[in-house]
Amino acid sequence: MAVSNIRYGPGVTKEVGMDLKNMGAKNVCLMTDKNLAQLPPVQVAMDSLVKNGIPFTVYDNVRVEPTDASFMEAIEFAQKGAFDAYVAVGGGSTMDTCKAANLYTSSPHSDFLDYVSAPIGKGKPVSVPLKPLIAVPTTAGTGSETTGVAIFDYEHLKVKTGIASRAIKPTLGLIDPLHTLHMPARVVANSGFDVLCHALESYTALPYHLRSPCPSNPITRPAYQGSNPISDIWAVHALRIVAKYLKRAVRNPDDLEARSHMHLASAFAGIGFGNAGVHLCHGMSYPISGLVKTYKAKDYNVDHPLVPHGLSVVLTSPAVFTFTAQMFPERHLETAEILGADTRTARIQDAGPVLADTLRKFLFDLDVDDGLAAVGYSKADIPALVKGTLPQERVTKLAPRPQSEEDLTALFEASMKLY
Amino acid sequence: MAVSNIRYGPGVTKEVGMDLKNMGAKNVCLMTDKNLAQLPPVQVAMDSLVKNGIPFTVYDNVRVEPTDASFMEAIEFAQKGAFDAYVAVGGGSTMDTCKAANLYTSSPHSDFLDYVSAPIGKGKPVSVPLKPLIAVPTTAGTGSETTGVAIFDYEHLKVKTGIASRAIKPTLGLIDPLHTLHMPARVVANSGFDVLCHALESYTALPYHLRSPCPSNPITRPAYQGSNPISDIWAVHALRIVAKYLKRAVRNPDDLEARSHMHLASAFAGIGFGNAGVHLCHGMSYPISGLVKTYKAKDYNVDHPLVPHGLSVVLTSPAVFTFTAQMFPERHLETAEILGADTRTARIQDAGPVLADTLRKFLFDLDVDDGLAAVGYSKADIPALVKGTLPQERVTKLAPRPQSEEDLTALFEASMKLY
Repeated sequence: MAVSNIRYGPGVTKEVGMDLKNMGAKNVCLMTDKNLAQLPPVQVAMDSLVKNGIPFTVYDNVRVEPTDASFMEAIEFAQKGAFDAYVAVGGGSTMDTCKAANLYTSSPHSDFLDYVSAPIGKGKPVSVPLKPLIAVPTTAGTGSETTGVAIFDYEHLKVKTGIASRAIKPTLGLIDPLHTLHMPARVVANSGFDVLCHALESYTALPYHLRSPCPSNPITRPAYQGSNPISDIWAVHALRIVAKYLKRAVRNPDDLEARSHMHLASAFAGIGFGNAGVHLCHGMSYPISGLVKTYKAKDYNVDHPLVPHGLSVVLTSPAVFTFTAQMFPERHLETAEILGADTRTARIQDAGPVLADTLRKFLFDLDVDDGLAAVGYSKADIPALVKGTLPQERVTKLAPRPQSEEDLTALFEASMKLY
Repeated sequence: MAVSNIRYGPGVTKEVGMDLKNMGAKNVCLMTDKNLAQLPPVQVAMDSLVKNGIPFTVYDNVRVEPTDASFMEAIEFAQKGAFDAYVAVGGGSTMDTCKAANLYTSSPHSDFLDYVSAPIGKGKPVSVPLKPLIAVPTTAGTGSETTGVAIFDYEHLKVKTGIASRAIKPTLGLIDPLHTLHMPARVVANSGFDVLCHALESYTALPYHLRSPCPSNPITRPAYQGSNPISDIWAVHALRIVAKYLKRAVRNPDDLEARSHMHLASAFAGIGFGNAGVHLCHGMSYPISGLVKTYKAKDYNVDHPLVPHGLSVVLTSPAVFTFTAQMFPERHLETAEILGADTRTARIQDAGPVLADTLRKFLFDLDVDDGLAAVGYSKADIPALVKGTLPQERVTKLAPRPQSEEDLTALFEASMKLY
């Protein structure tokens, strides 16, 4: 169980300049994306830096759903700037890009693949010290402000992968619910689905004492350790908040109470999955996002086709939990109950279908596209989707039930249509 | 909200040498007390240091319930040793002594009172970098492995006070439940009462947004911030574990399951109160311990009179929560229910007495001495006990209800006899 240092409160972003001053920063890189660069969260952060007399440079070229190329561009920018601290203002894409820039600038002789998770990269442990990084999330989903994970599309293989090490965890996360008032409805919904799946997957992940191999030195322990008594607390708590507040947060942009709770839930679920890990919904989501054809998600102001991360994660969730429920049926039933199902007369052997039906109803109520077919995939794409899932061992091996290629094929097939 | 870095598992102490090696340590100070120096927890830690080729020096002169003099002795030892890392193996006394040694060795030009909480000390913020400190708790109560607090008896004023700063929080806590198998029954009970009060006090502390003054710079925020949505999770969870496992843990030294749960609960409650704070039970406990006359607690192998910390904390709990319940009666009733009370027909205005009766029953079942009278105090001592509580503003101002000297007098009076 590793650390996340977070501070919560409306307006807490105003303190970022003081925090950096307290850290002794004299040359700060503020990373964001082109959209946010024009919006209040970045403005508030910049004002605080100016007010505290801290010289800074803005990098606003973060790509939403970043790639190895966009990571490399940010890394090169950071190397030239010789910064002594970083501030990331944005969603998971911005925070993850900033983590990568901080890591590779602190380890200038490393190849890019050195720290990328195996088997795509070499998965080397990080032993260099990094610069302070303050993360200011503006979406309520990724939890990246609390985790040591940075995800990107590896374009060469058309697949998402990532870097996972406690060493790249932000020094401090500033959870400012005022920023969530800028989120369009579908961004709230999709990022909320990411929280939902972080909680469900980390709570149903392989328990830590059943995971193998057991590393001989603590430094080689993976960031994702399997479900454990601490991550369970965070997962269940985040799930309760999703059940209570996500619909309200989606429907009403001014519902500060609901959006504040979801902003905290994102961090809570992040602390949970950042220690326990996620499994099949996330493992299968990477090719779903990576192989996108022409689908352009509503409410996302980007110039390229995009299946948002939270959507690509949640579309397989009914199929995934039907598949995994046989391993820990009580936990599956318990989460269904938290999400509103009446489980008093449910049989334990029906835990999977009960949770799947609960999820379908939840997604239907939130106007989610009807399965993978609705985001542009057909049966003919399934072999490629399976192929893109196989290298995601970092997460898929944390599923409570091992999966064959046939199992993955069946899970993608079952996810083509939801309702 | 600062979080703590902990690793849990039977036998995890064996990894301490590897952790120190990973940190680059070459000259380690292992702090412990004379009792533990002969017992397996210290032996296992030393074996691991030897196995990993790490030179170390043992300091076994930690005083149980440390004083400014015993802190100073440890600080002088550490200054001479020029250590680059610390390991504390023991209860709160050892971990707190080690935190102080690390702090003042890293800040050699400071006066001892510089970092001691106001009004007894100057309460200066810590801005020097400290050396890594790995804490290996051998009792299940203090939670000191997760907090930035070090408590001692200030002998000149005959009162307990402390140093509180996120900066002195251990780098890593190794929660090894095997160590709890060495605890005698009363040590398990008393340290469990500390967990109980950490949970109850942090859950009922003044909420963070009502605390004043609101500091203008984050670095001057106190370690204790008031109850908040994150500390609440930890407090309630720890309380559930106390309710379920403390009695079993006290009665059977071989009940690894119960003692493991209590060991984790101690860390959980520590993360909760380490951020939210404690209030009256702790504030009033410091003179109860500090003014001890001849009482010598059973099962404690020390050569001086001693009211163990957990006992001094819990003896006033029925009176304290009767006093505070009017501010947040729902929370008081909720905790009574978690501790086993049937609250279905309880009236909200009876929350205080309901919780107090529940606590009295719990303490009676665990053979706790019948109030302050049973540990050597009489009515004549109350003015001195009140006088010793007044400087404990660090915690007492976090009580949900302000207290006058008359209030404190009444609370001590009501605590003379419990049953």
